Amino acid sequence: MSHKVKVAVVGASGYSGRELLRLLLLHPNAEIVAVTSRQHAGKPLTEEFPRFRGVAQADALSFVAPNITNITQSGAKIAFLALPHGVAHEFAAPLLDAGLRLIDLSADFRIRDAKVYAEYYDHAHPEPALLDEAVYALPELRADEIKKARIIACPGCYPTSVLVSLVPLLRAGLLDDSPIAVSSMSGVSGAGRKESLPFLFCECNESLRAYSVPKHRHLSEIAQELDIAASRKVRFTFVPHLVPVNQGICTTIFTGLRNGVTVDDVAKAYATVYAGKPFVRLLGNGQCPDTKNVTGTNFIDVGWAFDQRADRLILMSAEDNLVKGASGQAVQNFNLACGYAEHTGLTVL
Amino acid sequence: MSHKVKVAVVGASGYSGRELLRLLLLHPNAEIVAVTSRQHAGKPLTEEFPRFRGVAQADALSFVAPNITNITQSGAKIAFLALPHGVAHEFAAPLLDAGLRLIDLSADFRIRDAKVYAEYYDHAHPEPALLDEAVYALPELRADEIKKARIIACPGCYPTSVLVSLVPLLRAGLLDDSPIAVSSMSGVSGAGRKESLPFLFCECNESLRAYSVPKHRHLSEIAQELDIAASRKVRFTFVPHLVPVNQGICTTIFTGLRNGVTVDDVAKAYATVYAGKPFVRLLGNGQCPDTKNVTGTNFIDVGWAFDQRADRLILMSAEDNLVKGASGQAVQNFNLACGYAEHTGLTVL
Amino acid sequence: MSHKVKVAVVGASGYSGRELLRLLLLHPNAEIVAVTSRQHAGKPLTEEFPRFRGVAQADALSFVAPNITNITQSGAKIAFLALPHGVAHEFAAPLLDAGLRLIDLSADFRIRDAKVYAEYYDHAHPEPALLDEAVYALPELRADEIKKARIIACPGCYPTSVLVSLVPLLRAGLLDDSPIAVSSMSGVSGAGRKESLPFLFCECNESLRAYSVPKHRHLSEIAQELDIAASRKVRFTFVPHLVPVNQGICTTIFTGLRNGVTVDDVAKAYATVYAGKPFVRLLGNGQCPDTKNVTGTNFIDVGWAFDQRADRLILMSAEDNLVKGASGQAVQNFNLACGYAEHTGLTVL
Amino acid sequence: MSHKVKVAVVGASGYSGRELLRLLLLHPNAEIVAVTSRQHAGKPLTEEFPRFRGVAQADALSFVAPNITNITQSGAKIAFLALPHGVAHEFAAPLLDAGLRLIDLSADFRIRDAKVYAEYYDHAHPEPALLDEAVYALPELRADEIKKARIIACPGCYPTSVLVSLVPLLRAGLLDDSPIAVSSMSGVSGAGRKESLPFLFCECNESLRAYSVPKHRHLSEIAQELDIAASRKVRFTFVPHLVPVNQGICTTIFTGLRNGVTVDDVAKAYATVYAGKPFVRLLGNGQCPDTKNVTGTNFIDVGWAFDQRADRLILMSAEDNLVKGASGQAVQNFNLACGYAEHTGLTVL
Repeated sequence: MSHKVKVAVVGASGYSGRELLRLLLLHPNAEIVAVTSRQHAGKPLTEEFPRFRGVAQADALSFVAPNITNITQSGAKIAFLALPHGVAHEFAAPLLDAGLRLIDLSADFRIRDAKVYAEYYDHAHPEPALLDEAVYALPELRADEIKKARIIACPGCYPTSVLVSLVPLLRAGLLDDSPIAVSSMSGVSGAGRKESLPFLFCECNESLRAYSVPKHRHLSEIAQELDIAASRKVRFTFVPHLVPVNQGICTTIFTGLRNGVTVDDVAKAYATVYAGKPFVRLLGNGQCPDTKNVTGTNFIDVGWAFDQRADRLILMSAEDNLVKGASGQAVQNFNLACGYAEHTGLTVL
Repeated sequence: MSHKVKVAVVGASGYSGRELLRLLLLHPNAEIVAVTSRQHAGKPLTEEFPRFRGVAQADALSFVAPNITNITQSGAKIAFLALPHGVAHEFAAPLLDAGLRLIDLSADFRIRDAKVYAEYYDHAHPEPALLDEAVYALPELRADEIKKARIIACPGCYPTSVLVSLVPLLRAGLLDDSPIAVSSMSGVSGAGRKESLPFLFCECNESLRAYSVPKHRHLSEIAQELDIAASRKVRFTFVPHLVPVNQGICTTIFTGLRNGVTVDDVAKAYATVYAGKPFVRLLGNGQCPDTKNVTGTNFIDVGWAFDQRADRLILMSAEDNLVKGASGQAVQNFNLACGYAEHTGLTVL
Repeated sequence: MSHKVKVAVVGASGYSGRELLRLLLLHPNAEIVAVTSRQHAGKPLTEEFPRFRGVAQADALSFVAPNITNITQSGAKIAFLALPHGVAHEFAAPLLDAGLRLIDLSADFRIRDAKVYAEYYDHAHPEPALLDEAVYALPELRADEIKKARIIACPGCYPTSVLVSLVPLLRAGLLDDSPIAVSSMSGVSGAGRKESLPFLFCECNESLRAYSVPKHRHLSEIAQELDIAASRKVRFTFVPHLVPVNQGICTTIFTGLRNGVTVDDVAKAYATVYAGKPFVRLLGNGQCPDTKNVTGTNFIDVGWAFDQRADRLILMSAEDNLVKGASGQAVQNFNLACGYAEHTGLTVL
Repeated sequence: MSHKVKVAVVGASGYSGRELLRLLLLHPNAEIVAVTSRQHAGKPLTEEFPRFRGVAQADALSFVAPNITNITQSGAKIAFLALPHGVAHEFAAPLLDAGLRLIDLSADFRIRDAKVYAEYYDHAHPEPALLDEAVYALPELRADEIKKARIIACPGCYPTSVLVSLVPLLRAGLLDDSPIAVSSMSGVSGAGRKESLPFLFCECNESLRAYSVPKHRHLSEIAQELDIAASRKVRFTFVPHLVPVNQGICTTIFTGLRNGVTVDDVAKAYATVYAGKPFVRLLGNGQCPDTKNVTGTNFIDVGWAFDQRADRLILMSAEDNLVKGASGQAVQNFNLACGYAEHTGLTVL
């Protein structure tokens, strides 16, 4: 029998939590020993998520209240935090003190600069010291640090879709300094699983709308990572849109190439960075990704094209916001952190 | 009893044709005297479009074959051409010769320059002389010419959504010359009502995808009109996306303001151009339009925002691709052409 | 200028309220003088329902608190009550005392027998005397009483879809006494416009589910009306299903014909009852209705078929749950009550 | 390394074929050695199904023409036939002669009586001798025969949803002989992956409709199996409905209990038949299944309720039409046929 690492899922009743459970239930090297939910404590897991009925490990689990004791006494060595922003950090210090490693799906440890965090999240970061330690964990770009980290801060769903397209090109110095424009569309699960009028079926179905213009919170982490990749201040605009699908993010980016750079250089930069990376699928020049090819999976599909008329490079990506954009990436980081092959438990189709 | 103008709908079996019929059936000053369809000739209209059953005028109509005689003998004074691109122009000269005026929903008469037409539509324009005469008929921007025109070339769905946002700002000289990036999302009806695998329900539902990158045919008419508005060559990129709604286009545009221009100047430019225009609803700074507020109607909602971080102006619009983007606009042009109030028959909600 | 009746819409922030506003804004003989909402009092109507922006009458309206004074002082002669069940009756007596007529979209006055009401709605009816006076107002079946009624109790959405199919056949004595089985599917707007987890987009999209089995509240009014039509106790089962569309009810009924009755008798019974009724469209034997042909309209489409193998008659209907199933029917009743042609303001497509 | 059985997927370009590929690609004991498609012969598999890109086995496959030689020379021991009805039987005799076993997803070998086949499928069965040999392969009900069969005829999607609910009750003699009424809703993938106007996105989205009333082809196999289970002629009516989801069937059945039979007897009959069956999940009395809990999986969820008012038993089931209703069941049968545990390769969530 293969070795299994005991894990806790803290905040298991949302959509990211549900996807995380789905993936961990199928993972050969993970054993879920605690699932927490403030609201559902005491309730069998499969009552809230009937999809998991009949899976032995799921049938045996009930939600427990999200307190430190419940988590530490479960024997978990790793805690996944699938909590709302601003809640995850309450768990960080005590769980670290108890010897657990953290894989955080919230935004709480993504921002290196506490001042930037305060600007975007409207309150001072309560654990600024831990910010230094946390790794912004895009596994294709920062695997070595993830392997050793105690706090693995999983990127947001939009940032993943943007950074996978842009970082290799910025690192290679292929882009000019004209403002980058990012237009993203997200499925409604991105809004979370909570009672809310704007996300009722009838408010979202047959509806297309931009939102959080011009200053979505995810800007802060995108900016941080673009600047690092480019070793300069990168100007970019980001407009997210809500569209009527359950899962999926489709991102289109408009940017400019430096003089003399060709679309072949773009292909080469991608090929170099993503060689041997199982979850980034490079579709090629002129190819448009479609979210329906990635939903439910940990893949992110990347295409690009050059518009000569306007001298603009167009970058396109498609991912599942809950999987590569959240829980799948978290499991990918879990694999790195535990020394498993990166795709373990993630060969879902 | 109010006076009624006899009209023919040539190519009435597609989605634009269906919407046109819907609006004309409700129009107090239009009488549909002929509906053509190659495929359905002889069939009662309501057999193909059961929605119209029980409406006296619809119950009385059957499709006829799309030949000139059928149209001219119907007594129609105005022919709406809701035909595929490349077919409409076959009808133009004979119908004009027979004394009819044409309201064309296809792309056949939108492009002034026959060379540009040939480049984008892959064949020489068969009636270049008529191109000179045709009016690119965005009613909010060119009402006077529409009133007198014999060939009223209705703008495409995407172009309408782009031009309503951009033209007033280009006319007023508010924008700098950095490349404009346009990201549009369209409902599936934009692909037409014809047997086609990529537009099956299961191929579109739960799918988000860009397409026709980087050279969608609509580029040609957008370019033409932006250049006219700006009195210069305007560089822009356009990426359309297909999303799972029936009707609706949501367009987001990224552009730059000239030095010293403020977001208030943007508001003023819009207010000036659209004062008294019943179908352009200016939502204001920081407001995001939602297609669900315009579907089925002839409204186009316009919002905007300025992103200081990146020095970019964001323009947003929402319309129904089949109504304001096609058939509603055609009826609006019909009203102008016939001297009726612009909103006649278009007060649908 | 045509005469206009002043009306109040009490409870205007839900989906039925919104549809009612849509229809009344287009109605040539209605003038909306008050719209109430507990939650939105003071807010401009178009802020909550941006779809109505640009319609002069809508732009002039703001929500007021739902108290009797606000309604009576508005000058309204008729009050539409689009309130939740159990709330509408609070308004009934005072508004009647003030001389208004009531068109109630809730279930509060649909049940003739206060004991049945108490059984299904879990509390004693507070105004049992008014139950006697109220008319269960299916306009195709009870026009004469509606014309004179002070309390017009509009049927529920499911009941309308069932009764239009069954009542003519029961009245004509065509059906045997085997149990009738009713399977209905409804769009999500039927669940109302309120914050609720089960009706979030992601909980309804890609989901098909029965609910309220075996005792949905609508059973009570269906039973009442079937028994009246048959002049006997009719046994029937009703299973509603929630399906991912915004609007629409599709109902399929399985029943048995009395010995010697043929499917032609079915057609005749329908033709007799629905002759001259503008909103019931009889599709004929072997024809299946489709909700997409009725959404947004006040039509109800009716088809039927006989399955010889099993000796069962199948009845099928399609309506828009918010229009013919609620607000359209309310306006149809308004027309009857005020002496206007039944289709006035309802020629929407 | 685990032993792998070489399999061919004949007719791999439809939705059932795609799902079959998905499951076989994940199956530890199957090796796909041939995928056929008349239309796509020569094309890489992942070009038609980009979802499978990056999966080594899929990347190595290209479609071949569907001829016997291609299949036999591939080394396949088992051929899955995911072909249209009326095409599969052309492959049967030659493949059997070549020593392969067949798992047929079409209707070609489901009907025991060649006369019934001819009545429902409009042509004489070309291989009536093979009908005798074929097993109607609902694995929960006929595992022993499946293990030995050369022709495994997988049940249709609707029949599976009906039979899983009804057969245990008929076998146990719990139901009276009143006509059974079946109302089913299916996602659009049930219509197949072929160019067709009625299944375009805009024709299905926001649409609910019954079809094939009163004589759907699936009646024939349902009738056959109900009669076998009851050892008598069972009268039943079946009305399928098309609803806007990709995958999923929700079936509701109305039937009558024999005198003295209780709802507890129903529960017991189910518990007896489905004990130890991993894919039938018994939700219990009063519980309504939801397709969203089974999509993508091989589970079928079963609930029931008794309506005392009308003396009717209501049975409800939910399955994925492409998985438990087609390809998952085929893989389940593959497991039985090859001696693997029934759930091998089917623990997808």
